[in-house]
Amino acid sequence: MTAIDVSADAARRALGASDEPDDVLIDRFARAAWSHLIEPGDGVAGRLIAHLGAGEALRRALADADVDGALTAQEYRDGRRRWLPRADAADVAHALMVARRHDIALLTPRDASWPSLLDDLGPHAPVCLWVRGDVTRIAPARAVAIVGARAASGYGEHVAQEMSADLAGSGVTVVSGAAYGIDAAAHRAALACDGPTVAVLAGGADRAYPAGNTRLIDTIAASGAIVSESPPGASPTKWRFLQRNRIIAAVSHATVVVEAGWRSGSLNTASHALAIGRRVGAVPGPVTSAASAGCHRLLRTEPVDCITCADDVREMIGIGGAVPLALPTDGRPPTDDLTRIRDALSARAWRDRDDIARRSGHAPDDAASLLGILLLGGEVESSDAGWRLVPRASARSA
Amino acid sequence: MTAIDVSADAARRALGASDEPDDVLIDRFARAAWSHLIEPGDGVAGRLIAHLGAGEALRRALADADVDGALTAQEYRDGRRRWLPRADAADVAHALMVARRHDIALLTPRDASWPSLLDDLGPHAPVCLWVRGDVTRIAPARAVAIVGARAASGYGEHVAQEMSADLAGSGVTVVSGAAYGIDAAAHRAALACDGPTVAVLAGGADRAYPAGNTRLIDTIAASGAIVSESPPGASPTKWRFLQRNRIIAAVSHATVVVEAGWRSGSLNTASHALAIGRRVGAVPGPVTSAASAGCHRLLRTEPVDCITCADDVREMIGIGGAVPLALPTDGRPPTDDLTRIRDALSARAWRDRDDIARRSGHAPDDAASLLGILLLGGEVESSDAGWRLVPRASARSA
Repeated sequence: MTAIDVSADAARRALGASDEPDDVLIDRFARAAWSHLIEPGDGVAGRLIAHLGAGEALRRALADADVDGALTAQEYRDGRRRWLPRADAADVAHALMVARRHDIALLTPRDASWPSLLDDLGPHAPVCLWVRGDVTRIAPARAVAIVGARAASGYGEHVAQEMSADLAGSGVTVVSGAAYGIDAAAHRAALACDGPTVAVLAGGADRAYPAGNTRLIDTIAASGAIVSESPPGASPTKWRFLQRNRIIAAVSHATVVVEAGWRSGSLNTASHALAIGRRVGAVPGPVTSAASAGCHRLLRTEPVDCITCADDVREMIGIGGAVPLALPTDGRPPTDDLTRIRDALSARAWRDRDDIARRSGHAPDDAASLLGILLLGGEVESSDAGWRLVPRASARSA
Repeated sequence: MTAIDVSADAARRALGASDEPDDVLIDRFARAAWSHLIEPGDGVAGRLIAHLGAGEALRRALADADVDGALTAQEYRDGRRRWLPRADAADVAHALMVARRHDIALLTPRDASWPSLLDDLGPHAPVCLWVRGDVTRIAPARAVAIVGARAASGYGEHVAQEMSADLAGSGVTVVSGAAYGIDAAAHRAALACDGPTVAVLAGGADRAYPAGNTRLIDTIAASGAIVSESPPGASPTKWRFLQRNRIIAAVSHATVVVEAGWRSGSLNTASHALAIGRRVGAVPGPVTSAASAGCHRLLRTEPVDCITCADDVREMIGIGGAVPLALPTDGRPPTDDLTRIRDALSARAWRDRDDIARRSGHAPDDAASLLGILLLGGEVESSDAGWRLVPRASARSA
């Protein structure tokens, strides 16, 4: 193993020509190195970096130098034992070389395109992002994660497509994981209407996973962005999938689960989103469909919104006019009094005021004024014989 | 019109042979009369009766006597103007005669079978109930209202049947409104498994409405009960349908809406149930189905439970074991550490401890103990060459 040299010269060599100041270069290079040394979500590394900066943290960790109380002795010792076996300068240089070859940008919190929403992850935030495509895509004004089961039903894919096309068509960035099923349906619908879409991968941004979605992932990179916190070459392990979900949740203003089995990984994404205070929605489906069981589970047990259409999603993120939704009540005046008058009338028989009052349970004077209202509305007609409904189809619903 | 005589003799004549004391007889007769005089839910009459008793309240209202401050002068005046046009002794006697002919029992709050749950309606509680069938059926230990759209889908009817059969089969009384669609499916499924079921009608208990469900209503009466607060002969007006819904909600421990259009009357039942503090559930369905739009509306805007099966309903009314429902989280130890070790292993290649530690991001000692756990579980095997997964299909889910 070659020792990692945390100097401006080494950083400039590894990152290629740059007119950035030394401290920026060192920070960028150190974060690239850290993303190789740690597994995603390593909060101990996160706290060390927050305390000392990425470069100094790396320098001290490599040298076993004192860390000014940023970590407990045991955290530091255990951390170094996790990190050091991977501390090979050649591996870091190789990852940066692959990134250049694939036009993968290395994004750090100092960059303007860095999604500030990631701050909500605290020490578990990624140390950097490797981005293939348009780096400005990953911190949009409005982003919604549309996620769900790989084993989606035709219903689920249809709903994901409709929702994604509607949202992306109105400028909302659709974030997902490029998996089969719901993820792919969401990305494809966004692309089909030239809308913005971002895929967060568990493995390196240079590796299309799943392989069957290679063409889709390339298409996303061409107009949107492919993002990973693990360096190029990293394989998509189960752990990284689970941690990838927290990135999807964090870079989005809200997360919608379209279909999910009882133990679907999408529930993990929902859980991450709720943990950092994001709104979460679940699309219901037939209770007889196993593909919706996870969504119904969310609706039963978590503070999530029932989502039926793109408007419901826009309401979650605070855009678009919400439909007034109050339930019909039994508050009496004025329509309920009229209901009872209508009940008391016939379209076939003329009835006098007192008969109508008795049938409706209204006082005679009240019945007369209510009949007057219906007369103005053209619902009833009057004659010497009394009152009757203007004959036409009068549907009754109960 | 014949004046109503509120005396024990008149009560005995109208009600037929009885060994009940005079005051009980008068109360019963007066409530029968009140149910003819008022429309369902008349809270002014309800307060007057609560204050003076049904007999005295009727006597004074007929005589325009002082009511001891039970009502404001205007309430009393307006009330009398509503009630008196219907105060014909012949009509009351006729209703009681029809009731006897149809074996319809007149139930009042003094009767042991009176559902005390109705007290939650306060002054809007019915003054009496007219019951065809088994009067002991209407105040069971466990009752659930299963209601929904008349224009139900095959999906909705299927769910209503499964849920009703499961609940009724376990002794829970299924309450509904005998309408087409969801109501009928719920009653039929309960009857099919010899379970208890009750139908609350908007018109008189002697009148089958809708006519197409006459045979169903007769079958319910034969083993369960048909209930109305309006006297025999009363027609099922729109007003009475809306008020009927409050009875369905009140006599049930919880209300489940299986399918409902955006403006379905079932939402009115849900609204009544919520207003008196009952738990309400809604069954989700495809967001593409108009027949589920009302259920989704409830789930979006009201504090209702998402109901997927009979177990969910039993949980609402506090019986049956609830399934533990916590979401899968990312809390690390112990399974997540194992996840990363599993990620670092291969079924095809032997890897040594340090290689596994580096790949998993664990310290070498930690990797060794975690490998020991997997070895005990039979997931990995070891040799001089290192460790590998015991070769078999290892599904990955994300």
